Amino acid sequence: MDYSFSDNIRDLKPSAIREIFKSLSDPSVISFAAGNPSPESFPKEEMAEISAKIFSDSALVSKALQYGITEGDALLRKLVRERLAEKFSLKNEGDDLIIVTGGQQGLDLSCKVTCNPGDVILCEEPTFIGALNSFRASGVRPVGIPLSSDGIDTNALEEALKREKNVRLIYVIPTFQNPTGLTTSLEKRKKILELASKYNVLILEDNPYGELRFAGEEVPTIKSMDTEGRVIYCGSFSKILSAGMRVGFVLAPAAITQKIVVAKQVNDVHTNVFFQMICAEYMQHYDLDAHIAKTRALYRRKCTHMLSCLDRYVGNLAEYTRPEGGLFIWCNTRDASPSKPIVQACLKEKLAVVPGEAFLCDTEAQSNGFRLNYSMPSDEQIEQGAKILADVLKAR
Amino acid sequence: MDYSFSDNIRDLKPSAIREIFKSLSDPSVISFAAGNPSPESFPKEEMAEISAKIFSDSALVSKALQYGITEGDALLRKLVRERLAEKFSLKNEGDDLIIVTGGQQGLDLSCKVTCNPGDVILCEEPTFIGALNSFRASGVRPVGIPLSSDGIDTNALEEALKREKNVRLIYVIPTFQNPTGLTTSLEKRKKILELASKYNVLILEDNPYGELRFAGEEVPTIKSMDTEGRVIYCGSFSKILSAGMRVGFVLAPAAITQKIVVAKQVNDVHTNVFFQMICAEYMQHYDLDAHIAKTRALYRRKCTHMLSCLDRYVGNLAEYTRPEGGLFIWCNTRDASPSKPIVQACLKEKLAVVPGEAFLCDTEAQSNGFRLNYSMPSDEQIEQGAKILADVLKAR
Repeated sequence: MDYSFSDNIRDLKPSAIREIFKSLSDPSVISFAAGNPSPESFPKEEMAEISAKIFSDSALVSKALQYGITEGDALLRKLVRERLAEKFSLKNEGDDLIIVTGGQQGLDLSCKVTCNPGDVILCEEPTFIGALNSFRASGVRPVGIPLSSDGIDTNALEEALKREKNVRLIYVIPTFQNPTGLTTSLEKRKKILELASKYNVLILEDNPYGELRFAGEEVPTIKSMDTEGRVIYCGSFSKILSAGMRVGFVLAPAAITQKIVVAKQVNDVHTNVFFQMICAEYMQHYDLDAHIAKTRALYRRKCTHMLSCLDRYVGNLAEYTRPEGGLFIWCNTRDASPSKPIVQACLKEKLAVVPGEAFLCDTEAQSNGFRLNYSMPSDEQIEQGAKILADVLKAR
Repeated sequence: MDYSFSDNIRDLKPSAIREIFKSLSDPSVISFAAGNPSPESFPKEEMAEISAKIFSDSALVSKALQYGITEGDALLRKLVRERLAEKFSLKNEGDDLIIVTGGQQGLDLSCKVTCNPGDVILCEEPTFIGALNSFRASGVRPVGIPLSSDGIDTNALEEALKREKNVRLIYVIPTFQNPTGLTTSLEKRKKILELASKYNVLILEDNPYGELRFAGEEVPTIKSMDTEGRVIYCGSFSKILSAGMRVGFVLAPAAITQKIVVAKQVNDVHTNVFFQMICAEYMQHYDLDAHIAKTRALYRRKCTHMLSCLDRYVGNLAEYTRPEGGLFIWCNTRDASPSKPIVQACLKEKLAVVPGEAFLCDTEAQSNGFRLNYSMPSDEQIEQGAKILADVLKAR
């Protein structure tokens, strides 16, 4: 029979990143295309210990394997709140926290509870493809605001707030943004919050990389400056403990969190209990800060290495960002020409990068950039990949 | 600030089951209100062994903790397909299988990809509250069709198919239905399929309890009789291995599964990898049939005990179903009077049951029934609870 699908899903394409990810089955291809944390960032021994502890205790294992409550494990919620207060100054007692099935579900449900089909979410452009597609899957229209080195163009943001009808959310990744690696300045964070207040919209602050700073100074989260209950804050354990376990969290004004609880209940009832217990046990009885410090050092080394290879081989053939944390470098063509031919030529020479188009709100628009990841490739692959990119750029 | 929410989520209430679940913190309350499998049904030792095996192998643990693909673990998908072919005659090569985050996500995404807001899903009445709320959260209107002891009223089903505009799905739990414990006859299964074909709608066949038969004869799944690619089939490991791990699956015509993959990717990227590996390893190297046989025997014993206590104490004070599998017995008032006063009186006497209203499509309607669960209470609690119920019924 012929199938017809819902309006929201019908035209949604599988993520370009995912399709590239699939094409990487050729082991001779060097991939700068991943969004994955390094496997070295997983505390395998400690998680093995905790797992053995849970499985050796009848009460703990019964809890781990049984249905849990939608809000999440009570101890984990308490520990995450304490950590968010300590690390990111998120101390508002009017907020409530829910554990979600990875940061992606946090974004998806935040959109679902606040937006109707046809509503608008203003996004940094380029921005995280997973968020864009999630918004689209709710029938919401993402509208891009240009991103510069210190954050979103706040003049363009205000123009869009005036121009667009039914703006519900401003979606930002202020710290080590995906895909650019850029960090929004304190001044611009304040301005974004000010504009959200002036035009009475909410902010969706996505901070999956916030713990991964390896250079520069901490910048306060937008949520920490929010006195009006205007910020929904999404975080995740994916980049600090494990991505495959799918454990993230949303901290939001209690009225919003209550609605996210209802939306989550009908979506997947609750997040995997066993890994919530692993996270809680890790936070309580192991040194998460020391573990993250090792991951930061790893990414500092890998990012520095990729940047020095780019400096050496690519030089002024292209422009690229110099991140202070996170997983990604963004590369623009020098003459602002479309990057697609370069991305395609790289793939021909066995270097995979993510084409910039994937990160644009307008699915028909061209990009002059592409994303490079340094957490997954080896040092040798990073050097080899930089050479390939340089050769491709020179040949143009 | 004042918050406004999306139309679909604004009026959605937290599940009544969940609220009752929360109120059970009083340990002196006997609960027949659960939907949980018995903790005895979790193969703790075997899962501990598999967990230790994964954590002791560097390649396995790296895989378990890293991002996976949205479709799910390739080995698990293969093993589930083989099992579905063997146990439920689901052999159509035009189908494709996706691993989801529990059966609930399977229902949620099936609705999301096939229905627009305002569309109608025809449901058995009473039916699973988690499905009802999921449909509502997509803006879909569930319309109830009366359920009798051999399944949905197929005359009423056809009338609704003629009457209602924009019917997209017929949602049924044909085997050991939640909340009634009833099983749809072969004849009615055929008729439902025939009507779906005649009126060109899809069937969403929910079968989380199908492996838990402890009496009577197997009845073929509706999907096994489908030659037109008209059935989306949802299953789960929640009732046979663990509920807390959140691993389920959807088997559907490939074109539908592809859309579910896209919808899942923006929802939670993929299901917890570690527990997908545990399920696969269990299916490959342990005796799942033997494990399920033990669970069936457990539930046979518990259901028989509850029925004999009801027969002894309640007798003809009420009507109740005699399930051949699953987790639930449904009880109706003898005179078809509203059950709410009985439910409330039971709770006052420290017996919790789930009021029938929770399972109705019309949120304003009254029910003359309530749901009893026998998988969680102890034998003593079952007897004590039946006595309380009888006393309440006698006092009316």
